[in-house]
Amino acid sequence: MEKIKPRTLSGFMELLPAEQMLFEQMVATLKETYSLYGFTPLDTPLIEASEVLLAKGGGETEKQIYRFTKGDADLSLRFDLTVPLARYVAQHAGELTFPFRRFQIGKVYRGERAQRGRFREFYQADIDIIGDEKLDVMNEAEIPSIIYRAFTKLGLRRFRIRVNNRKVLNGFFAILGLTDKAGDIMRTIDKLEKIGADKVCELLLELGVTAEQAKQITDFISVSGDSASVLEALNAYRGQNEIFDLGADELATVIRHMKDFGVPDECFAVDLTIARGLDYYTGTVYETLMLDHPEIGSICSGGRYDNLAEYYTDRKLPGVGISIGLTRLFFVLGDQGMLNREYPAAPADLIILPMTDSMTEAVGLATTLREACIRTQLYSEKKKFKAKIGYADKLGVPFVIFLGEDEIANGTVSLKDMKSGEQVSLPMDEVAAYVSAKLKDQKELAVILDK
Amino acid sequence: MEKIKPRTLSGFMELLPAEQMLFEQMVATLKETYSLYGFTPLDTPLIEASEVLLAKGGGETEKQIYRFTKGDADLSLRFDLTVPLARYVAQHAGELTFPFRRFQIGKVYRGERAQRGRFREFYQADIDIIGDEKLDVMNEAEIPSIIYRAFTKLGLRRFRIRVNNRKVLNGFFAILGLTDKAGDIMRTIDKLEKIGADKVCELLLELGVTAEQAKQITDFISVSGDSASVLEALNAYRGQNEIFDLGADELATVIRHMKDFGVPDECFAVDLTIARGLDYYTGTVYETLMLDHPEIGSICSGGRYDNLAEYYTDRKLPGVGISIGLTRLFFVLGDQGMLNREYPAAPADLIILPMTDSMTEAVGLATTLREACIRTQLYSEKKKFKAKIGYADKLGVPFVIFLGEDEIANGTVSLKDMKSGEQVSLPMDEVAAYVSAKLKDQKELAVILDK
Repeated sequence: MEKIKPRTLSGFMELLPAEQMLFEQMVATLKETYSLYGFTPLDTPLIEASEVLLAKGGGETEKQIYRFTKGDADLSLRFDLTVPLARYVAQHAGELTFPFRRFQIGKVYRGERAQRGRFREFYQADIDIIGDEKLDVMNEAEIPSIIYRAFTKLGLRRFRIRVNNRKVLNGFFAILGLTDKAGDIMRTIDKLEKIGADKVCELLLELGVTAEQAKQITDFISVSGDSASVLEALNAYRGQNEIFDLGADELATVIRHMKDFGVPDECFAVDLTIARGLDYYTGTVYETLMLDHPEIGSICSGGRYDNLAEYYTDRKLPGVGISIGLTRLFFVLGDQGMLNREYPAAPADLIILPMTDSMTEAVGLATTLREACIRTQLYSEKKKFKAKIGYADKLGVPFVIFLGEDEIANGTVSLKDMKSGEQVSLPMDEVAAYVSAKLKDQKELAVILDK
Repeated sequence: MEKIKPRTLSGFMELLPAEQMLFEQMVATLKETYSLYGFTPLDTPLIEASEVLLAKGGGETEKQIYRFTKGDADLSLRFDLTVPLARYVAQHAGELTFPFRRFQIGKVYRGERAQRGRFREFYQADIDIIGDEKLDVMNEAEIPSIIYRAFTKLGLRRFRIRVNNRKVLNGFFAILGLTDKAGDIMRTIDKLEKIGADKVCELLLELGVTAEQAKQITDFISVSGDSASVLEALNAYRGQNEIFDLGADELATVIRHMKDFGVPDECFAVDLTIARGLDYYTGTVYETLMLDHPEIGSICSGGRYDNLAEYYTDRKLPGVGISIGLTRLFFVLGDQGMLNREYPAAPADLIILPMTDSMTEAVGLATTLREACIRTQLYSEKKKFKAKIGYADKLGVPFVIFLGEDEIANGTVSLKDMKSGEQVSLPMDEVAAYVSAKLKDQKELAVILDK
């Protein structure tokens, strides 16, 4: 029979078992963190009616959509988790309790040009808090705490959450009389880190901003230092524009609670250059930078928006949310050598290698160990000793039990710690407690290895 | 602005938050169970090249495929998790360790005719053990134990795992000289439960089986009773056909270890009528029946096969696997009133309702509770007391903390147990320990409610 070459599509990540274990642990850590903050899990279809998914229409994204017909239905694969959330909340608004806090970790699809580190199928891990008509700014203050706890739990150390407020920027541009150019200016200053201040100035002039205004803008966004000094610098502009003052108040609220939310100073900064490209942000915006890898860009971004679902409902649904591009993050971490290869990625805690024809005792022992919540594999192939122990070794299983005639006669087992090489003989009914204790002693390792 | 009606496609399940929590718990329980048996998690792309996915070709399934083009690529959504597994194992064989034990829980797509309880997007939860050239029958013996533990942990009580062996059937048909009709006969007797013995007999005659042979077949598959008596009945046919004898041996091995694997007699039966429609099964086959709802059909099925990936590789990869159609099972359980509505489905263990303008103390308390692993929501909206407590009540959060001027002045909190209505005053630094203890005391509930 002629064989079809087994392969995956370009731009689709697929992992080998040990890597998959690390990825699963990242997902589990995010779920756990999001749950700690009272977010509820959500799952929406991967396929939506094109009319629904593309209600907003236009833009770069639409070209990348996986869109097709089935029967007479015009269908599309979701390209993010925000549009399905908007659809979900609008559709089920009557059955939800607001503020509605949900997390969703799932795959999305974008037919981008294939290139290294870019994926066409990738996981996003999103949280959003959706209010009904109103949503207090305290929700915006809570977000950095979630980002901080998630990445810290994952093992990341050297990162910084940078926040800004779109009202501050919009208010400032209004003070300069540049309201009609605010969107363009914001997209320009958002590029500051990539292209530098001179180039930003140049682009601003091209937008029709005067040299004087351009200088005022670059001076303004260059304000740096700790949060308190940035806030103080902002105070100098107060009293000229309502939106600006409101933004400065919001930013002050966010900063005021950082310490109580458990975010240390060194992991948090106000950065007036953060604008985020998307037009729909209206308040606090977030980016998260790996300090040693700024070239990667933001690994967790988001912000406050005032109208989540305007394409589906008249109900005003303001919210705040963040998103982690998990597949890309995982790729980058691997690329930087930051995945913890010491992390226990074996499919089992223990493997039983029976050395006798009768499997009865081995089966009984496996059952006992599983009842004690020890992940146990029973090796059943009729192979030589070397092949059996080689199997356990290749999988990286930490404990191996040999069960031979002698052991069975004595009611004992030989247990080998594969890391230390130490081998002990134990009464069969003490194995579960012994291994459980050893497993508990193991240092809890994080998935990410950061200095 | 004209609104687009928010909606999901027909045949696509989408759950409200409380139901989603139950579903997530089902998935978590299955993951935990599969891990206990040393299976490693796997994740493959939802989209594959059509040439790869449809290598086997033909059949009912192909018509149901979601197939489309993107650029010049001919793509299809996966319709099960077995074909992607075959592709994965063939593609990565050199990097895997055999026997390779993997589980995968993911969505698959079939454009079936829409009808109640049938889904076009649904979760499958699969495990498979893949050997390289060989795979010992003990792996087949272990499978019922996994099914038993999974469903028991989910809360199901009244179910039975029924096994048969295709070699026994094939061998028996060979003894009757009906080898060339074996496939058709098997598909016919597989319908026994649906259509009854008379109709089966009729269909057998239509296949060209003689009346005498038809009687022998229906007599044979009607053998019932406990495992030991079925085995004894099979012994009467021994010595006439090698395949039959091998099958009887395999069945004996599976049965011999059931008790040691922890499967009680009442949850297990040999049933010679179980044939499974699919041709590629070659040894033990499994079905799982809810005793009070036989009309639902098997909720977990699978079997032994000898050649997983023949369309992709010359390497012989025998295996054994089972699959749970999770979305349909969830739907059926809901339909039968068997989802446990007492199961804690709130997004948080505790909610803090601040009664003061300052949020500082509330934020600090939330941080402390989260550090103690208590899922805590901080309510930040400026609403009246009634609206605040109504929010906690609607979400079903078990504990509520009121934090007012008096409490803050005294360094205490008022904690209300929403179920008992009991309210206590506690020093702020004792809250975490108190609530943790209360949460631990809560009876562990299962997702499924079975008598």
